[in-house]
Amino acid sequence: MSGTTSSNPVLVEVTRGSIVESRHAGAIAVSDPDGHLLLTLGDVQRPIYPRSAVKAMQAIPLIESGAADTFGLSDDELAVACASHSGDAVHLDAVRSLLAKARLDEGYLACGAHWPASEEAMRALMRAGRRPQPIHNNCSGKHASMLAAAVALGLEPRGYERPDHPLQVMIARMISETCGVTFDHAHMGVDGCSVPTWALPLSALARGFARLGTGDGLTPERASAALRLVAACSASPVLVAGEGRFDTVVMAALEPAVFVKGGAEGVHCAALPELGLGIALKIDDGAKRATERALTEVLVALVHEARQALAPQLEGELLNWRGISVGRAVASEALMQAGGALDDSPRRRVEAMARQTR
Amino acid sequence: MSGTTSSNPVLVEVTRGSIVESRHAGAIAVSDPDGHLLLTLGDVQRPIYPRSAVKAMQAIPLIESGAADTFGLSDDELAVACASHSGDAVHLDAVRSLLAKARLDEGYLACGAHWPASEEAMRALMRAGRRPQPIHNNCSGKHASMLAAAVALGLEPRGYERPDHPLQVMIARMISETCGVTFDHAHMGVDGCSVPTWALPLSALARGFARLGTGDGLTPERASAALRLVAACSASPVLVAGEGRFDTVVMAALEPAVFVKGGAEGVHCAALPELGLGIALKIDDGAKRATERALTEVLVALVHEARQALAPQLEGELLNWRGISVGRAVASEALMQAGGALDDSPRRRVEAMARQTR
Repeated sequence: MSGTTSSNPVLVEVTRGSIVESRHAGAIAVSDPDGHLLLTLGDVQRPIYPRSAVKAMQAIPLIESGAADTFGLSDDELAVACASHSGDAVHLDAVRSLLAKARLDEGYLACGAHWPASEEAMRALMRAGRRPQPIHNNCSGKHASMLAAAVALGLEPRGYERPDHPLQVMIARMISETCGVTFDHAHMGVDGCSVPTWALPLSALARGFARLGTGDGLTPERASAALRLVAACSASPVLVAGEGRFDTVVMAALEPAVFVKGGAEGVHCAALPELGLGIALKIDDGAKRATERALTEVLVALVHEARQALAPQLEGELLNWRGISVGRAVASEALMQAGGALDDSPRRRVEAMARQTR
Repeated sequence: MSGTTSSNPVLVEVTRGSIVESRHAGAIAVSDPDGHLLLTLGDVQRPIYPRSAVKAMQAIPLIESGAADTFGLSDDELAVACASHSGDAVHLDAVRSLLAKARLDEGYLACGAHWPASEEAMRALMRAGRRPQPIHNNCSGKHASMLAAAVALGLEPRGYERPDHPLQVMIARMISETCGVTFDHAHMGVDGCSVPTWALPLSALARGFARLGTGDGLTPERASAALRLVAACSASPVLVAGEGRFDTVVMAALEPAVFVKGGAEGVHCAALPELGLGIALKIDDGAKRATERALTEVLVALVHEARQALAPQLEGELLNWRGISVGRAVASEALMQAGGALDDSPRRRVEAMARQTR
């Protein structure tokens, strides 16, 4: 067990009154599909678990297995396969429909249950005197997609969540190929929803997102699968998270220029297809408020329309229980400098121009 | 705005599989009533907002104003005045009774509303199709106690939450006297429940808790008020937080040897009356899972019975949505070394013996 000191810089500060009340350190990598790093801040080589940030990569077998075509999956169903959803009716409908097309039911879901993030959905369950079921788990779309892929591949669907199930072996290979990294078997963890999560460096994760968004550096089959999944998420951003949630808000405002996906414990990634870039960041302490604020800063530096579209996220105002403004979540000096450097990056301008003239 | 680097050591590591997934840095002070520091880890001089950790100090006017005697307040009512409660019926009953004795009603509460932390209480509200009210706010007991103190002092209760209301001026003075520190008016923030929160160093906060638990270093009147409030919390620990919550579990297991109170944004404090010590810690990023794990380590080092009573908190096992063990929240090497040093501290043994033979 290593790492008793935090060598990463503070990325986000949370103020109250005139002082900084809390601080979030972390690391960020911005990469092109070849693995050239446009920005590194903090330790981007330390292995981290990508958690739910790589759900679109975990969904690649859904396309490559032929399941998406065989079962005639819609954009909503593909998007919910890549989702950490709020458990609203729109999400549950898509998951149920995905399962039904694969001739399976909710009883196969091995993700465990938790209350939906959507207050409306939670209230509806509580009013009915019901408890949450696996279908309400934010990962149920990913699990349904794994089940559908297993069926299309002629694999036994039961046990699909286990590391030694052929589907999980295939998923691990596809993520490692997409990110251009070899997984260390000692660095496998069990995710909140019970499937494996494989640790990899932020640098590789950023490269994987650059490839996911562009198809560059991937086989034609893999590129086609990646682009189809990203396009489905861009077409149905509310399916990927939910009403008012960060990933949905960002994609609804900036698609197709930005594909974005968060994961537990402070991971957040983005693909910027037009710029040919991928972003991967991890907040050391796992706080979502900091991942979202840090990613906003990087998006604003790289994507022109983001400053206006993400003005509230950039402001980061914190309200108390009576709606009084008590402080802000702001970019640290280190993060602002990195954003400034990205904004001025000649490489970024060249890349952007090159792509626009293709 | 200062502090773009985190100079504090990592105190708690969160593992998943074989690697550390997340890290929480912070600072800890352990002090006696005179301000002699038995332990410092990290920066204990930087001003931090104590938030809800000082609710027992904010309740001192309830005693000194004569309100507690005039209104014949019970231990439950005094304990809920010091509480960040879960919003269960037992808490709401105590708050309502406190208000009724002061001849006020819930309409005076200026704390704002949020859903109760208690799932049972939230479910009951949702089943009834109701929204949370200020009485459900975890701070409603503190607000009721402020109102009762204002009434007993002949002050206008409306506006009791404002920094310039005589009651808040008095509370600020009492906290600053108890902790032996002068407040900087530039370092006042507005708390989640809309009352002022005054920044002070962890060293002073730890001294304040040593005095709160022993009465040492306080005027006789202040000492009597402090001991009465701490005794009420020890007698009714479930009123101070709620079923299954850290502060309630710790006090139920270890009272009267330990009085403990957490606050928002990673603050946690404790008084150890038998040892004559106060503990104050702040996790830089504000994560409660880390404050509780770090405080457990310090309590186990100082209080003999704590190792057995807090075995689950010490184990820090993390379960996923299917109840599978996926990792642990563990003390960092720096925190373990500090705990070891405390455990061996000759000073601690001498102090403990001296107190036991009094």
